[in-house]
Amino acid sequence: MARVGFAGMGRMGVPMALNLLRAGAELRVWNRTAERCAPLAAAGASVAATPAELAAGVDVLVTMLLDAASVEDVLLGPDGALTALEPGAIVLEMSTIGPLAARALAATALERGVHLLDVPVSGSTPAAEAAQLTAMVGGDREAFERARPVLATMTKEQHHLGPSGAGAAMKVALNTIVAVSNQTVAEALLLAEAAGIDAHTAYDVLATSAVASPFVHFKRRSFLEPETEPVYFTTALMQKDLSLALELARVHGVAMPAAAISNEVLSLSARHGHAEEDIARVYDTLRAGSGG
Amino acid sequence: MARVGFAGMGRMGVPMALNLLRAGAELRVWNRTAERCAPLAAAGASVAATPAELAAGVDVLVTMLLDAASVEDVLLGPDGALTALEPGAIVLEMSTIGPLAARALAATALERGVHLLDVPVSGSTPAAEAAQLTAMVGGDREAFERARPVLATMTKEQHHLGPSGAGAAMKVALNTIVAVSNQTVAEALLLAEAAGIDAHTAYDVLATSAVASPFVHFKRRSFLEPETEPVYFTTALMQKDLSLALELARVHGVAMPAAAISNEVLSLSARHGHAEEDIARVYDTLRAGSGG
Repeated sequence: MARVGFAGMGRMGVPMALNLLRAGAELRVWNRTAERCAPLAAAGASVAATPAELAAGVDVLVTMLLDAASVEDVLLGPDGALTALEPGAIVLEMSTIGPLAARALAATALERGVHLLDVPVSGSTPAAEAAQLTAMVGGDREAFERARPVLATMTKEQHHLGPSGAGAAMKVALNTIVAVSNQTVAEALLLAEAAGIDAHTAYDVLATSAVASPFVHFKRRSFLEPETEPVYFTTALMQKDLSLALELARVHGVAMPAAAISNEVLSLSARHGHAEEDIARVYDTLRAGSGG
Repeated sequence: MARVGFAGMGRMGVPMALNLLRAGAELRVWNRTAERCAPLAAAGASVAATPAELAAGVDVLVTMLLDAASVEDVLLGPDGALTALEPGAIVLEMSTIGPLAARALAATALERGVHLLDVPVSGSTPAAEAAQLTAMVGGDREAFERARPVLATMTKEQHHLGPSGAGAAMKVALNTIVAVSNQTVAEALLLAEAAGIDAHTAYDVLATSAVASPFVHFKRRSFLEPETEPVYFTTALMQKDLSLALELARVHGVAMPAAAISNEVLSLSARHGHAEEDIARVYDTLRAGSGG
């Protein structure tokens, strides 16, 4: 099994790294707040003091961090991983940093003979624990095939979608559909209620219609009984993803009017105090903006 | 079984009327172009010469016509049905004429002691033939209960949703979700393609995601291989339904930004020559408007 470095011991990183370790990887881990490495150290991983120490001599480096700034810092900063990676090493950048940032990092890495693949995943912490994540991969196909055994210890499916940025682009493209679906369900419910239909009854009809996606089924309580539901996807995070999608759309001259209006409504909802609440609160934001 | 009049021998009306006849209704039919009544006459229905003759003495009158103007003509025109219906009779208006028109007709009918229910259905001709339609009902609940046995001969499910207009409102609300879903799938595919992802591969990922509704599954060939696919829902018809939804939204002061932008894009697609083509051609319209 490969020598692997893993940066980022967050809610996703810890279970993913544990799966790597269980599969027999020779694992070294790093986290800015070092205490978060404790579960991995206890399970047998070694702990690096810096990203450069993490990267020295590994075949594959995994980054699972908060955002593009964190990834750039870990790879390119002082004591950054890229100074220590050997030519031929592969970086699996799994943080959802946006396609344009992924492309720029991949180009910088390639100058040092390192292939960086953008590998965002769909699925949250339970899927990470069960190695049931789906990976969407952009970048060099040969590098993907070499890194695939490592990736397969953490994910159920691995789809190579295209060149650098393609994995990140697919992820934000899917999230535009999620955001717009969320908004159009809210709009339809508000119209139905205005026509005298009980919201629960309207949702029943919706849930048996041709537009009843898993998202629509899953979201029912977030719309109708939010008091008892956890926050699944914050308004702020979704708006960030839509901004990344729209940025890419502008670069390529792609028209995305529904995604653009959804981005505006998510911004409005954030300003209405829902930034750290679930995206389903768009329902309240649009209701507040309605006369009925 | 009840005495029933049925106006409108179109692609939906004929199989629905045949199901009524099979269930034992004493059936009289009418159509502006009288020849279209032939299949029903052959099956044992009597044929009326005018809407008034159709309506005289029936317990339930069903209208399944092209649009609101046709329904108004049949009910309120010279020799119209409303002049001949007896107090206590029930009209099942099944044509999808829009909630505001349905409310106005119901108010006029009530002046003569007649209850008009708006009863749009979901499902197309095959569902009509198999009596597998779903009926969304707005209007007086007691009238609904009385007419339900007649309705149940033509439909699988009958949902009473609220006051007059509620059935029509639910139908156009659902169609706003269909239209917006259609558009956001097109946008996401175009973004994925611009990032170098094959459209079929992108659709594969989409079809296994949380937003994979029956609509998304069903529409795959309409997006990717339209040459061999029939037209399922024309751009012009969908734009009419969105206009009805937005008209109702304005009356009630409901904000529907996604539905509004979808209406604009459907109008654009119609002007691009796709009015009588499937709504999936929004994909081509947005591609034409994109630089990539």
